[in-house]
Amino acid sequence: MLRFDPRLYLVTQRYNYSREEFLERVDAAIRGGVSAVQLREKQAEGREFCELALALGALCRQRRVSFWVNDRVDVALAAQADGVHVGQADLPAEALRRILPRQTLLGVSAYTVAEAQAAEQAGADCVGCGALFSTETKPIKLLSREELQAIRAAVRIPILAIGGINADNAAVPIAAGADGVAVVSAIMLAADPHAAAKKLRQVVDEALATRQ
Amino acid sequence: MLRFDPRLYLVTQRYNYSREEFLERVDAAIRGGVSAVQLREKQAEGREFCELALALGALCRQRRVSFWVNDRVDVALAAQADGVHVGQADLPAEALRRILPRQTLLGVSAYTVAEAQAAEQAGADCVGCGALFSTETKPIKLLSREELQAIRAAVRIPILAIGGINADNAAVPIAAGADGVAVVSAIMLAADPHAAAKKLRQVVDEALATRQ
Repeated sequence: MLRFDPRLYLVTQRYNYSREEFLERVDAAIRGGVSAVQLREKQAEGREFCELALALGALCRQRRVSFWVNDRVDVALAAQADGVHVGQADLPAEALRRILPRQTLLGVSAYTVAEAQAAEQAGADCVGCGALFSTETKPIKLLSREELQAIRAAVRIPILAIGGINADNAAVPIAAGADGVAVVSAIMLAADPHAAAKKLRQVVDEALATRQ
Repeated sequence: MLRFDPRLYLVTQRYNYSREEFLERVDAAIRGGVSAVQLREKQAEGREFCELALALGALCRQRRVSFWVNDRVDVALAAQADGVHVGQADLPAEALRRILPRQTLLGVSAYTVAEAQAAEQAGADCVGCGALFSTETKPIKLLSREELQAIRAAVRIPILAIGGINADNAAVPIAAGADGVAVVSAIMLAADPHAAAKKLRQVVDEALATRQ
């Protein structure tokens, strides 16, 4: 059994939203079908990041979806997040597993089979793989469908596909073996984040059902 | 009794030194009289920061001086640092005290009596106060000698004076009640870091002796 529901994983970006608008958009997206939320704040200082994490964590607990913090272990611990997600340039998974409480989930970005296997070996609970499609959120080398299938064959932990995913293409990574899709702009920049999440979730659920 | 020796506290900055030059300079400075070292890396990504912290922490343990990490609790924990130092924009001291192991020292930058008292109240083991003198390392409002004396009168924890301190002026904050001086460029940019540290330590020790 999965320790969290990876089907529709929202990675936040503040864009120009006020704090209230931001929280309202995430809440609408959760009610639409988002199953996990990761707070990613590349610009904010620690205190501001922490305050936002406390607010978003409270919302996620209330809505019963898992809450993840990108990169900052201190913020994750202070906000009692369910998980921490790190990239290959952040602290190595082995070091994180030693300092994190046992119950804290650990996600690791992996771009190759070797990175995904190393992450699983080090105790990661999921890997984020991508980008399958080009994206403006984060410039990154594209991962082919075959590479994603190879990662699927190589690890047992859940795989989140990330990068340029929207309702039109979300079925592709699921068909290739991903357990869920992670999105940023497809929800955060949607005119109606509730409707966008609902549509995405429907696509993912249908693709998962077709695969089984 | 103080839980660490605050007399000459080196805050590192990489400048353009290679990793080897950097570690050699810090080592020379410790042999010259530095009593505590704080790794401050504002640019490095987590993994690089962590690797440097492991190397510098090992050096400090070998030389028996306390080792502090600026801001990043995860790096401090991974490197088993003696302390973490945070600014007013980082996570609040209360939150850090909750997530840090009991034995980990906590330093907090404080620019006013109120901030210093709040830090002590929240469980800080020392405060860094400044800048007393203008500095190019970090642009900051100057603290007067009277303000430093007022902070001294208001808290019991050690006070580190920081900002623009060198051998010519290091006696001033000590006379005003600081327990030590924190320096960056006076050692890191010195032609001879060993000699610079030795001279600074001598000035601090004499000023402390005069005060008592």
